[in-house]
Amino acid sequence: MSLLENVRGPRDLKALAPGQLGPLAAEIRRFLVHAVARTGGHLGPNLGVVELSIALHRVFDSPADRVLWDTGHQSYVHKLLTGRQDFSALRGKGGLSGYPSRAESEHDVIENSHASTALGWADGLAKANELLGLGGRHVVAVIGDGALTGGMAWEALNNIAAAEDRPLIIVVNDNERSYAPTIGGLADHLAALRTTDGYERVLAWGKEVLHRTPVVGRPLYESLHGAKKGFKDAFAPQGMFEDLGLKYLGPVDGHDIAALESALRRAQRFHGPVLVHCITAKGRGYRPALEDEADRFHTVGAIDPVTGEPLLPAGGQSWTSVFGDEMVRIGDERPDVVALTAAMLDPVGLGGFAEKFPDRVWDVGIAEQHAAVSAAGLATGGLHPVVAVYATFLNRAFDQVLMDVALHRCGVTFVLDRAGITGTDGASHNGMWDMSILQVVPGLRIAAPRDADQLRAQLREAIDVSDAPTVVRYPKETVGPALPALGRVGGMDVLRWGEPVVPGVPQQPDAGAEATEPGAVLLVAVGVMAAVALSAAELLGERGLPCTVVDPRWVKPVDPALPGLASRHRLVAVIEDGVRSGGVGAAVAQALRDAGADLPVRTFGVPERFLDHAGRSEVLDGIGLTPTQIADRIGATWAAKENGR
Amino acid sequence: MSLLENVRGPRDLKALAPGQLGPLAAEIRRFLVHAVARTGGHLGPNLGVVELSIALHRVFDSPADRVLWDTGHQSYVHKLLTGRQDFSALRGKGGLSGYPSRAESEHDVIENSHASTALGWADGLAKANELLGLGGRHVVAVIGDGALTGGMAWEALNNIAAAEDRPLIIVVNDNERSYAPTIGGLADHLAALRTTDGYERVLAWGKEVLHRTPVVGRPLYESLHGAKKGFKDAFAPQGMFEDLGLKYLGPVDGHDIAALESALRRAQRFHGPVLVHCITAKGRGYRPALEDEADRFHTVGAIDPVTGEPLLPAGGQSWTSVFGDEMVRIGDERPDVVALTAAMLDPVGLGGFAEKFPDRVWDVGIAEQHAAVSAAGLATGGLHPVVAVYATFLNRAFDQVLMDVALHRCGVTFVLDRAGITGTDGASHNGMWDMSILQVVPGLRIAAPRDADQLRAQLREAIDVSDAPTVVRYPKETVGPALPALGRVGGMDVLRWGEPVVPGVPQQPDAGAEATEPGAVLLVAVGVMAAVALSAAELLGERGLPCTVVDPRWVKPVDPALPGLASRHRLVAVIEDGVRSGGVGAAVAQALRDAGADLPVRTFGVPERFLDHAGRSEVLDGIGLTPTQIADRIGATWAAKENGR
Repeated sequence: MSLLENVRGPRDLKALAPGQLGPLAAEIRRFLVHAVARTGGHLGPNLGVVELSIALHRVFDSPADRVLWDTGHQSYVHKLLTGRQDFSALRGKGGLSGYPSRAESEHDVIENSHASTALGWADGLAKANELLGLGGRHVVAVIGDGALTGGMAWEALNNIAAAEDRPLIIVVNDNERSYAPTIGGLADHLAALRTTDGYERVLAWGKEVLHRTPVVGRPLYESLHGAKKGFKDAFAPQGMFEDLGLKYLGPVDGHDIAALESALRRAQRFHGPVLVHCITAKGRGYRPALEDEADRFHTVGAIDPVTGEPLLPAGGQSWTSVFGDEMVRIGDERPDVVALTAAMLDPVGLGGFAEKFPDRVWDVGIAEQHAAVSAAGLATGGLHPVVAVYATFLNRAFDQVLMDVALHRCGVTFVLDRAGITGTDGASHNGMWDMSILQVVPGLRIAAPRDADQLRAQLREAIDVSDAPTVVRYPKETVGPALPALGRVGGMDVLRWGEPVVPGVPQQPDAGAEATEPGAVLLVAVGVMAAVALSAAELLGERGLPCTVVDPRWVKPVDPALPGLASRHRLVAVIEDGVRSGGVGAAVAQALRDAGADLPVRTFGVPERFLDHAGRSEVLDGIGLTPTQIADRIGATWAAKENGR
Repeated sequence: MSLLENVRGPRDLKALAPGQLGPLAAEIRRFLVHAVARTGGHLGPNLGVVELSIALHRVFDSPADRVLWDTGHQSYVHKLLTGRQDFSALRGKGGLSGYPSRAESEHDVIENSHASTALGWADGLAKANELLGLGGRHVVAVIGDGALTGGMAWEALNNIAAAEDRPLIIVVNDNERSYAPTIGGLADHLAALRTTDGYERVLAWGKEVLHRTPVVGRPLYESLHGAKKGFKDAFAPQGMFEDLGLKYLGPVDGHDIAALESALRRAQRFHGPVLVHCITAKGRGYRPALEDEADRFHTVGAIDPVTGEPLLPAGGQSWTSVFGDEMVRIGDERPDVVALTAAMLDPVGLGGFAEKFPDRVWDVGIAEQHAAVSAAGLATGGLHPVVAVYATFLNRAFDQVLMDVALHRCGVTFVLDRAGITGTDGASHNGMWDMSILQVVPGLRIAAPRDADQLRAQLREAIDVSDAPTVVRYPKETVGPALPALGRVGGMDVLRWGEPVVPGVPQQPDAGAEATEPGAVLLVAVGVMAAVALSAAELLGERGLPCTVVDPRWVKPVDPALPGLASRHRLVAVIEDGVRSGGVGAAVAQALRDAGADLPVRTFGVPERFLDHAGRSEVLDGIGLTPTQIADRIGATWAAKENGR
């Protein structure tokens, strides 16, 4: 008989006897391994918080109390305990989200998966409770030690600590890791806290000593006792958090439900901000995860639940590995090239570089702001930094890219992996913002390579720029086949020539590289959308509408040759996998206007809305970015224009 | 005879005898008061760092050593000591920048004035020095206690502390203030550090006690002494920084040059990261500043150097005060409205609100990220937060506006003061980015009021939106005269009707509010640019080119009625005071394209470059945004189009 099946919500969980909780935890672990093995998903983090999730929902009263999950990929157990046990379509279209989701449950609050946000949310919710007379309700934020390295966490701690009598509980889920092991001064401090046992013993002994020497010892003890931190705190190294004004409880064994419940109940009774330091093991209870030192099965695809081996053979070469391999070659040739990662060395492909050039790579923590600003310092100091992050996370460093890197004309290359549609990770993981927000950054150049050869070439071109920021962006999936250029116009690669249909323009193509052959429609294809554009052009050609397809390679700034090429066509269509607002299409349209080329432009990209999780191709289909959809819309526009003449 | 005049650079400073330094400091203070009284500028912060600047340049060897100023408005003394003593055109066109400037001096590194960046720059520079074998060179970052509340500072501290043997000196310029007094847990901790004297006495006494009780005391002392922090550290509360792995020196009297030099030399000899805690007084040595509790003369206009009174009578009503007054009224009517400021309560106009509703306003520190994310929490908790910041600083919170506020459909109103061109504060203070980067945020709405009445009305409209973020933006200057609407088209105010010139469209205007009267050119004016657009329309009308001028009021999303109105004209021009890339003009052009209205559009806005400091009107003239320049360019476009027909 299944304990888990009978837990329909926190109330059922509270009704269980303490002796049933261990078996429940074991059952949840089996469920997780088997469910995630089928669909893929975040496995290691959730195996680490089984007992913590149980204890939280037994002690607190969600949803009146708010339980907040920082980087919501650790919320699977929470989902299981709050009425969501159908994991069959996890992260797929129509299935459970891989993160908390307000549409799924009233127990969910924070949906996004950018790290270090939960303490800020908690501060706001606690203030609202206080102001609305709901001070009896608790706000509990669960945050990993990795997420504490992010600046937002610090800003929140500083604010939370300022209100000594506003209750708020911070649970630090300390597994010594972000994706990989957490680094930095804070990590060292947390390590010191983990050894508090020793200090506790010293404490008891020291107290006794001082009491036994009444003339000087007692007054010393009293004077310290009366000070803000008290005697205990002077010896135990919870210093940092208590220095800021947070009560510290811990460390607690994060896999001992009784200990967790006890600590959480103490925190619950305290009328002020409390930090509960829980030690957990990522991947707990699943040998293949524990044996994986790189990331403890942080995220997996479909796997064999027993061995942990991937079920599907690896597909073609990934964009990430093309980048990673080329970085090693570049590193060999240029000793001034260094690399930065925000807690994702291997996922962004810098593992090889780090192995070969360990002194030339830095993991800055989950701290994209610091990656960018310290890169400005590195560049000013004479090096060329390559900052490799997922595209969506660069949003965090927008101000630093603009005000530190670009304003100071620093040669820094940002490599944005997972650009465009990622799909299954939902709204907050799509890399659909970068090409719009970076358009405003003076001097910055953006490369969107269409295949592996272009990625290698453009990465080198980017790193050769020493007086401005450069960006190289590419998607998540495996690299498609090479798409050879038929010629060049300016710096742009022509991938397909249209047939001449515009009266009065030369019909004889020049076979030389600089020749342009006009057609009805000019398709401007951004990066990986080149293949989509070529397919759409094929379809339109079959319908009698000849299309030229051009890959601008560098999508910012707009190539000066583009207006001239466009003017030899009757319609321009820009196809990109970023948000339409202010994207490459908007920039192309502006460049045409500025050149006085007022021909019709249509832009195909991501609409201005958040995209629900689903497979990548399902998402592209849902937003009209398949070749057929694009061809149909271009055909309809053409027909309307020609009829309107 | 002037000591200051003979200091042409750090070498001259080093040659001075210790006894000359006090008189030099006094001379510098007199210089600052008289120079800044004439031009306006940052006075209080610079009066506070006179001795510190002297000591830094005597101990270190700039520019081989790097002296970095966080929020560079505290760099006036540094300028005086590094060869720049002509302050006659400070912050004016062609004059000295109000911040460090690489174009001015090899002693300047960080030009921007967004806070909390210096530690990140220092980390990068120190790493570069190490890698390039220049480890003997020092990197010194001066950061205020206020700037330490920003998340970037935390990210940097965490990284700096990770390298125990890479020298880097952090000078905390602790004046207990950002703009106003610094708040939060960190501020309390710094206050505790300021009282270290007491701890030092306890320390000496306790050490003696423990030594006198050899059986238990001695081993206790030794065991603590051998621990990471040592005995002294267990009693003295420098804990937080040392917990992170930074050596702590201080507190040091920041107005005692000998003490400062001694501490800095100790720091210089230490082979690792050191924090030197200096206590300074903002406005030191200038009674009018010291007596001003609000901000200690943080920034001043032209003043009487003796009394500190403003020389020019205050002009008309400021945009800031219109907002501030209306907030008080709204606060009376709606108890759920709360306000947040990032360390600038008075400058953003929330002083009145705070006085009347002290429980409903929070200063979060220099922490725009936290302002936005905690606002999402407040909104989810049932309140309507108004986050008031300078427009340029919202860049810091882009990801939080997108991923926390917008994704969760939170009713949060962002009020952006100093939007558009600010001028004298240079490249990093212009509020020219917001209307572009915010275009991509799904559901977000942007209001750009053209006059005081519109600001009051649109602020209320914004606060009435409960399921999406809203933005209200307005410029620095005083509010101009009211610009009445002649009619409405959709939600847009028509400020001027063009005369009908398009053949085939009805020529008889309907006098009703919904009527549209077509003309040759449709000018779409954003916010304060309405007055400029009206003047340009006047000029074009005189030249026989009738213009309609419309104020869309809400510039995002584009009003659904705009394409229809535009189609009754032959040319559309959008005039805005934000960057052209992806701005309102780009959005209008896209809306027209999406509606199949392919008429020519021209966009007038800020070009994609950083703008040098100068007066606001000089800047506008320099980027072609005066009425004459706009009219000329529209006229030329019209002529080219008509000739091309």
